[in-house]
Amino acid sequence: MKKNILVIPGDGIGPEVTTWGKAALQQIAKDYGHDFSFDEALMGHIAIEQTGNPLPDETLEKGRKSDAILFGAVGHAMYDNDPSLKIRPEQGLLKIRKELGLYANLRPILLFDELLQASSIKPEILRGTDILFFRELTGDVYFGEKQRSDDRNTASDLMIYHRYEVERIAHKAYKAAQQRSKKVCSVDKANVLESSRLWRETIQEIAKQYPDVKTTHMFIDNAAMQLIKDPKQFDVVLTANLFGDILTDEASQIAGSMGMLASASVGDGTGFFEPIHGSAHDIAGKNLANPLASVLSAALMLEISFGLKEEAQTLVKAVDKVLKEGYRTKDIADKQTASDKVLGTREMGDLVLKYLAK
Amino acid sequence: MKKNILVIPGDGIGPEVTTWGKAALQQIAKDYGHDFSFDEALMGHIAIEQTGNPLPDETLEKGRKSDAILFGAVGHAMYDNDPSLKIRPEQGLLKIRKELGLYANLRPILLFDELLQASSIKPEILRGTDILFFRELTGDVYFGEKQRSDDRNTASDLMIYHRYEVERIAHKAYKAAQQRSKKVCSVDKANVLESSRLWRETIQEIAKQYPDVKTTHMFIDNAAMQLIKDPKQFDVVLTANLFGDILTDEASQIAGSMGMLASASVGDGTGFFEPIHGSAHDIAGKNLANPLASVLSAALMLEISFGLKEEAQTLVKAVDKVLKEGYRTKDIADKQTASDKVLGTREMGDLVLKYLAK
Ligand SMILES: CC(C)[C@H](C(=O)O)[C@@H](O)C(=O)O
Ligand SMILES: CC(C)[C@H](C(=O)O)[C@@H](O)C(=O)O
Repeated sequence: MKKNILVIPGDGIGPEVTTWGKAALQQIAKDYGHDFSFDEALMGHIAIEQTGNPLPDETLEKGRKSDAILFGAVGHAMYDNDPSLKIRPEQGLLKIRKELGLYANLRPILLFDELLQASSIKPEILRGTDILFFRELTGDVYFGEKQRSDDRNTASDLMIYHRYEVERIAHKAYKAAQQRSKKVCSVDKANVLESSRLWRETIQEIAKQYPDVKTTHMFIDNAAMQLIKDPKQFDVVLTANLFGDILTDEASQIAGSMGMLASASVGDGTGFFEPIHGSAHDIAGKNLANPLASVLSAALMLEISFGLKEEAQTLVKAVDKVLKEGYRTKDIADKQTASDKVLGTREMGDLVLKYLAK
Repeated sequence: MKKNILVIPGDGIGPEVTTWGKAALQQIAKDYGHDFSFDEALMGHIAIEQTGNPLPDETLEKGRKSDAILFGAVGHAMYDNDPSLKIRPEQGLLKIRKELGLYANLRPILLFDELLQASSIKPEILRGTDILFFRELTGDVYFGEKQRSDDRNTASDLMIYHRYEVERIAHKAYKAAQQRSKKVCSVDKANVLESSRLWRETIQEIAKQYPDVKTTHMFIDNAAMQLIKDPKQFDVVLTANLFGDILTDEASQIAGSMGMLASASVGDGTGFFEPIHGSAHDIAGKNLANPLASVLSAALMLEISFGLKEEAQTLVKAVDKVLKEGYRTKDIADKQTASDKVLGTREMGDLVLKYLAK
């Protein structure tokens, strides 16, 4: 199979981790006889520095033409400390999501048995958890109009949804649920928000077309609680952009660490694959980042964009093997288990490749 | 001390639990020689049924005239299932918050040692946690303009903040931090939202007036994760209305159960005290609800609205004693501990009163 893959390393630990996602794809290509070619492009703070634009036209162009995108992260402390800066790294990410029509963000909460202990949650609560989040990614308060009064004392963001935006992601979520445990939990705040009431109405309508799937509705505050209290109750969780952002980061604690979670953004065209962890500037360049989420993002690409299930499984198994043998990056090391072998980013990446090679 | 207290039982388990908050206040009045008089008023679904209005004028009038309000909960499944209903119980709660200027919602995460095991989080992660949330309560997307297009296919809510709204709650939060561990963590989504950038700018300004307090800023997605990963890092958490709604429900898992958490809403006038659990219609009228959050809400009233610290402590100690002796309502019972003595709402309430009486 011949594919063009665009790598967008971005900021912070982005370059360090995408190196390993890319290397894993190269190894798979070699082992399975595929022809993957790679190009690279700028986004985020590094793009602002080099071009003045968090998403240069060239990146977008390359993205449109590629078969899939492997992305790292964007962000930088200087923007976080100065809210008045007008040009910001995150704008690049939001714009590419919108421009490529990446309206459905899939975040599987994959639980490796070996990491049960790495979580702050009790193993008996976690064991058996298998959640697939569908986060809407191109609507909501992220993209509604932003305003700041002339005197700078009032600021607003419009939380807005159109029915078709809810419908199209709902269909994706229900179809996925049909292949899984046939449950969709839709999360909103319909007791307060009009946009949530539209969300709930729409889901109620779509649900009728999937009578084999059991639908429940939960308020976001309750969902944030239930996710910790009893994660096993969930199968597919379907929610809006902002609520999805919050819930999936929270859910990373189920998998033991943010460093383990991959995500796939899909929609109208090219798929976009990224770890859910951010740029983590505090550990950037220190060989501390966990490369496994990028490797698992590559696995999602193989499965979802290229339909290469076996290849994807091979990647996941290599990650599993590394963990089974007790290797850990710092974020997933169990302070209580002296037998953990703690590795840096490069050593962990190398090891995955080694296990992959045969 | 002479005080007029308004009790608003509301819906679901509201009446069952406020019975015990009120009884605790009566017992305290008796033991300490105070003169507390009580009145009652309607709000929520029950108010809609009896008057057509989720917040009848009479309730607001009585609220304004009282020295403090003890509230239960509002909500009913019929509205959750039908997003198109125009008159809704929650409107009563939102309106009374706005009308009484209750802009600061304090939610202390009080950890009873005996309940460490009741949580889904590991005891060693929890032990020593002591967080005080300040949730802004009269602004944000809760109160911004709501719109629905004529074709009903587009819906929006305006997420909006004014600088003075952020300032006034920030001052309260910083003053509280000065009496505690001198740390404020402000939570926002300034990398995406303009209203969050105003929030962050304003906090940065206010922080300068409290040089003895250490300020940090955290994005909401990260905060939802950190709260579970390492709750001990937090002292005062200061956040907007929607983010506070989500984080405090999530944080209830730190305290073992929603059934244990009380909250105080204060601002321009009369204080408003309520459990953070909702109306929980599924267990209403079954003698299953945990009355302790209402009792602890009464304790917050004694301390915050009346300045009666000793009386408040007496209430907290009675709750502590009940727990120490192994009594639990179902929500906080540890399935693994056969020695738990599981009680209903009434039995638990009676026991608190008994321990209080001497
Ligand atoms: C970096 C930020 C804009 C982004 C988001 O909020 O969507 C990130 O948190 C994510 O979840 O991908
Ligand atoms: C009932 C609902 C409107 C309310 C809120 O969202 O504020 C509740 O969840 C709370 O936290 O007090």
